[in-house]
Amino acid sequence: MWTITETDFAPRHRHHQETIFTIGNGYLCTRGAFEEGDPNDRRATFIHGVFDAAPIVVTELANAPDWLPLTVYAAGERFSLHSGRTADYAQTLDLRQGLLTRTVRWTAPSGRQLHLTFERFASLAEPHTLLLRCRVRPNFAGPIEFRAGLNGDTHNDGLLHWRHLEQRADPATGAVVLLNRTRSSGIDCATAMRLVTATGAELSRQYWDVDNRPALAVTVTGRPAEEIVLDKFVAVYTSRDVPAAEVAAHALAAVVAVPGWDAATAANRAAWAVEWGRTDVEIDGDPEAQIALRFNLFQMLIAAPRHDDRVNIGAKTLSGFGYRGHSFWDTEIFMLPLFTYTAPHIARNLLNYRYRLLPAARAKAAANGFEGAQFPWESADTGEEVTPTWVPDSHDRTRLVRIWTGDIEIHISADIAYAAYQFWQATGDDAWFAAQGAELILDTARFWASRAEWQAEAGRYEYNDVIGPDEYHDHVDNNVYTNHLAQWNLQTAQAVLPWLRAHAPERAAELTSSLDLTPTRLSHWQDVIDKIYLPATPEGVLEQFEGYFQRTEVDLAALEPRTKSVQELFGIEGANATQVLKQPDVLMLQYLLRKHFSDEVVRRNYAYYTPRTDHTFGSSLGPAIQAIMACEVGDPDEAYIHFIRGARADLRDVRGNAGDGIHGASAAGTWQTVVFGFGGLTFDAHGWRTQPRLPRHWQRLTFRFIYHGQPVTVELKNEPAPAD
Amino acid sequence: MWTITETDFAPRHRHHQETIFTIGNGYLCTRGAFEEGDPNDRRATFIHGVFDAAPIVVTELANAPDWLPLTVYAAGERFSLHSGRTADYAQTLDLRQGLLTRTVRWTAPSGRQLHLTFERFASLAEPHTLLLRCRVRPNFAGPIEFRAGLNGDTHNDGLLHWRHLEQRADPATGAVVLLNRTRSSGIDCATAMRLVTATGAELSRQYWDVDNRPALAVTVTGRPAEEIVLDKFVAVYTSRDVPAAEVAAHALAAVVAVPGWDAATAANRAAWAVEWGRTDVEIDGDPEAQIALRFNLFQMLIAAPRHDDRVNIGAKTLSGFGYRGHSFWDTEIFMLPLFTYTAPHIARNLLNYRYRLLPAARAKAAANGFEGAQFPWESADTGEEVTPTWVPDSHDRTRLVRIWTGDIEIHISADIAYAAYQFWQATGDDAWFAAQGAELILDTARFWASRAEWQAEAGRYEYNDVIGPDEYHDHVDNNVYTNHLAQWNLQTAQAVLPWLRAHAPERAAELTSSLDLTPTRLSHWQDVIDKIYLPATPEGVLEQFEGYFQRTEVDLAALEPRTKSVQELFGIEGANATQVLKQPDVLMLQYLLRKHFSDEVVRRNYAYYTPRTDHTFGSSLGPAIQAIMACEVGDPDEAYIHFIRGARADLRDVRGNAGDGIHGASAAGTWQTVVFGFGGLTFDAHGWRTQPRLPRHWQRLTFRFIYHGQPVTVELKNEPAPAD
Repeated sequence: MWTITETDFAPRHRHHQETIFTIGNGYLCTRGAFEEGDPNDRRATFIHGVFDAAPIVVTELANAPDWLPLTVYAAGERFSLHSGRTADYAQTLDLRQGLLTRTVRWTAPSGRQLHLTFERFASLAEPHTLLLRCRVRPNFAGPIEFRAGLNGDTHNDGLLHWRHLEQRADPATGAVVLLNRTRSSGIDCATAMRLVTATGAELSRQYWDVDNRPALAVTVTGRPAEEIVLDKFVAVYTSRDVPAAEVAAHALAAVVAVPGWDAATAANRAAWAVEWGRTDVEIDGDPEAQIALRFNLFQMLIAAPRHDDRVNIGAKTLSGFGYRGHSFWDTEIFMLPLFTYTAPHIARNLLNYRYRLLPAARAKAAANGFEGAQFPWESADTGEEVTPTWVPDSHDRTRLVRIWTGDIEIHISADIAYAAYQFWQATGDDAWFAAQGAELILDTARFWASRAEWQAEAGRYEYNDVIGPDEYHDHVDNNVYTNHLAQWNLQTAQAVLPWLRAHAPERAAELTSSLDLTPTRLSHWQDVIDKIYLPATPEGVLEQFEGYFQRTEVDLAALEPRTKSVQELFGIEGANATQVLKQPDVLMLQYLLRKHFSDEVVRRNYAYYTPRTDHTFGSSLGPAIQAIMACEVGDPDEAYIHFIRGARADLRDVRGNAGDGIHGASAAGTWQTVVFGFGGLTFDAHGWRTQPRLPRHWQRLTFRFIYHGQPVTVELKNEPAPAD
Repeated sequence: MWTITETDFAPRHRHHQETIFTIGNGYLCTRGAFEEGDPNDRRATFIHGVFDAAPIVVTELANAPDWLPLTVYAAGERFSLHSGRTADYAQTLDLRQGLLTRTVRWTAPSGRQLHLTFERFASLAEPHTLLLRCRVRPNFAGPIEFRAGLNGDTHNDGLLHWRHLEQRADPATGAVVLLNRTRSSGIDCATAMRLVTATGAELSRQYWDVDNRPALAVTVTGRPAEEIVLDKFVAVYTSRDVPAAEVAAHALAAVVAVPGWDAATAANRAAWAVEWGRTDVEIDGDPEAQIALRFNLFQMLIAAPRHDDRVNIGAKTLSGFGYRGHSFWDTEIFMLPLFTYTAPHIARNLLNYRYRLLPAARAKAAANGFEGAQFPWESADTGEEVTPTWVPDSHDRTRLVRIWTGDIEIHISADIAYAAYQFWQATGDDAWFAAQGAELILDTARFWASRAEWQAEAGRYEYNDVIGPDEYHDHVDNNVYTNHLAQWNLQTAQAVLPWLRAHAPERAAELTSSLDLTPTRLSHWQDVIDKIYLPATPEGVLEQFEGYFQRTEVDLAALEPRTKSVQELFGIEGANATQVLKQPDVLMLQYLLRKHFSDEVVRRNYAYYTPRTDHTFGSSLGPAIQAIMACEVGDPDEAYIHFIRGARADLRDVRGNAGDGIHGASAAGTWQTVVFGFGGLTFDAHGWRTQPRLPRHWQRLTFRFIYHGQPVTVELKNEPAPAD
């Protein structure tokens, strides 16, 4: 249960398969494009933090120089899946060690045959090192030529991000180094390559010094049924890693230091064993759930920055062009719990990214006339807001559509505070909290207090003209999720300050001064906490936003079977006028602040909002949380339907857009469903406990977490149902 | 007086110099970028009609695969102007034969020296053939290596337009062919290359088969003071020229057919002699005017399509990225007179381009609720409107600026009709007029009649909410240029129909039916002609648009010395509120419809509008016409100031944006100033006559034109001023 395999070479599914067969190591990821190229591929390597300016989308991860190119010639005939005939095609991703293998038997137009195997991985042990092996077994005697190159002419859907600086072949080692620089952000990237004939007799070797596409051409004597093995070792450094003047030397040194395929593979496997030892979840009785969960965890593990706290994980991880590598609340609310509880060193890197970008968040708040820290809805390298403001209408190029999320989807600032607090609670890392976490909570609280609008007549504070997580409804007033999280943020800040004074008095004094935490300000915070408007019916049903109850009811069941989202069916304005939800804000809120709501209130809200939600084509963020709340109300069967929908979202390309990259929040959300939903894991002052409510066909569930530095393994079994 | 030379290698002026040293042959043009590359070059080759989609600007001429790459290695050291030392640098453009020559003496870091000469031209005799020669004289004994490539990874400021299809080396001839396809419009382009060592002994030759950058590496024995000569012959075909399946074969055949440098050069020189024999203008007594005029004529000659009537000349010709290759009224009003009177076969191609795109002009009119043909303000391959509608504000990315010219700068439809009529009058080409020209005039007349708004109360027709040539003032009512030209268009259409009935009755019947030219419609046309609103003061000063006289007067002299346009100084809205003109619509009108206005009225309008015009930093279209009208009012000294400003605009980079390409209208406008202004050439029913008013320091002016098929050479001399 550790491998994903495809045995069909289906050109029209290539983009999906490229996403699925992405490999990586938390420094970079490379999509599963073919070494030899393919006319319509979306080949890409994304390196964390290597952003460059782009029209409309502001900035995007620059598709890095391509390290994959390797073409094979059988006595002059170029191998391609589009010429001759192919048989026994298979592509396999081994999740346990991040190894992608492709095998194919190819008959050239001349009738000559090759049996080819391509293997590749990005070393988890040596994160700047990438390895590619090509094994070829001919059925004839004749020359086998390998051409292995580097390509600096990569692009993002036609947009070039790199200039060519220089390149050279190192006379001592034969290694080739290519040097590029991003066109706008000025990041230097060195890519080095070395070619080793591991098995076979080299007839000739040439260096083709073509600008921006340096290549090595190696010819090996082919004999019938004898395997030739060629290894391509690659190393990558950017000026984000080392000084710009040293990137080439570092890449060259790293590629020369590769100890050979077997040793590098062993080191990589060992590094992966550590990761899985911390992260793996075992499910007995449900093979699809088992492999899907591991696949989703793998996607998180290859995207997670281990050695860099200046980067974050994009909504589509590092696996595709979607959302341009920008990070959203997806990180804090969907991905961070996984890392907080299984790899706190990664969670800390991700939170420090936000901490480092507090100055930009303060600038955003100030530009909007507020105090404190207002984090951007979409975030890249600088922490500036990078949400596009106007995008072309797909139907009419003279029209533009205004994107408002960057202006008014403000809940992200509370989400970040929430994740910081959760990390502190889970790790007990007081030093980090005093140095970084507390400031995140206090400065977002300052924002919330200044953003609250006092309505004298009603005697209450309001947050008006916002967008909640449910993006079908925009420009709403008093969104229940936003208002409750803002209140929580302020309450938590009130509690943080006394703690700091008791445990880190110098830091408390520092922050009191720098954040101007005067008694007047704190008293204003308390006033907002006490008088924030939190509308609900007498029965405890929370109104998602003011006026929601008056929107048109839609019988979603009557629309089935559907193939489109409600927004696509009704239009943006049409969907806005209905009660249909892209995802249920109230359930999301009750998941995060579970203890604020009684079981009965949770049940009532679940019953009210569940039939009003576009579960199938709404937000990909929905199913994981919907499943958890189904567990909370005691319906694990219903929970399983949502869980499996989320778990298979990318593997089965349920939404048809997996070619743009992995749905990161959904992938990480499935772990939360399993652990907090089916496992019922909770924490309180006394520690942790589980309240299992496993799907009935699961025999056993084993998961791991770390609590206050202590690794814990939990094994839960379904008791056999009592015989009737 | 036939060469432009620069002897300074100034990196910060490179983009300007690349524009100035553009070569071409009316099929394509190539900017004066260096063969060996330069880090910040804007290297480009533009092929007529090869457009591809681009964000915001809709479509643009795709920078074609690069045929220039040629690097030279002196015993392993790569020649570059940025390494070692350079001396005796000079770049020379020989206008008489379109030949660009660069010479430099280069001392490598090791101390070895090369004397290098690069020559290139695009053959005017064989328009698909491009030739490049490199002559190298070393001061040492050792290998000289030449690497000559083709590069399909070209881009427009970072945007890739080409996919790589395939490439190969022809075993019989050693020629290399590269095949690319535009990403969106699907145009195939084959570029073929052949390398010939004309002088020297080849030591080795390799083909480097790197995808999209095929290269030949040739090493020649170098001996002190002995010259090596290497020729790179290139041929280009696109699927606009021949069927897509045949582009590679055509390019290969063409490159193989190149007869050698000397023979190709002779053929090219002969072809150029014919062009100059038709076009040249000689000015004695003013060397700067002489060379500037020839330079401007050269720019027109290399941009003019000789073998294709599906393309037009862009506002920046084929010499830069500015305006993306889009065509404006610049063609009809500024460039066409040059071709109409010196190369009617070229003028006919340009007019047929409009004729072919009548269906798109009809669609634009219909989409706006009008009848007839409304031509696009910016036009590319399909004739659709390609003016950008919204462009990002350069100061604030969250704001967008609306560009209105594509919606309401409607005078272009009359400008096209005017040029068609002028061509007919000048050539007497009745067959063309019956088949094409008449329909252009009749269908634009239909547009003008339906676009006219009847104001019952005032008893007049108006054209409201338009932009005239003076773009400082937009959304104006009853622009004098637009209204007069519309009236002229309708009047001319009324005259065309009887002529057609008399001389081409079948065509008359055809058009009467297809354009629905009923008596009712013709009577409505007459009604518009009679009742169009044409405001003027009792003294005959035309009001540029309704309310112009009420705008704020600005003392332009008081703002001197300026370095910015009035629009930059006052802002878009600020300039709009003043009387300051980017160019004077009334003078433009009186130039085109000279016989409609008495000398006295012309004088009064000239006196009124001249001091209100931003001559230095307003429109680059202004000086040529201002100069002609200065001649008309008897002030050749004042005329010369405007003339020379326009003539040197690109050579001296007066506006600082020549790096974006040649100002085509200005370049062609200088010819009109000389011929119609200083020469005073006019035509009437009896033929042509001149009314010379030469600048006083000109001793002699000789120009050529063709009238009704008859070539005429006019020589005008300044009579010596009578002694006091």
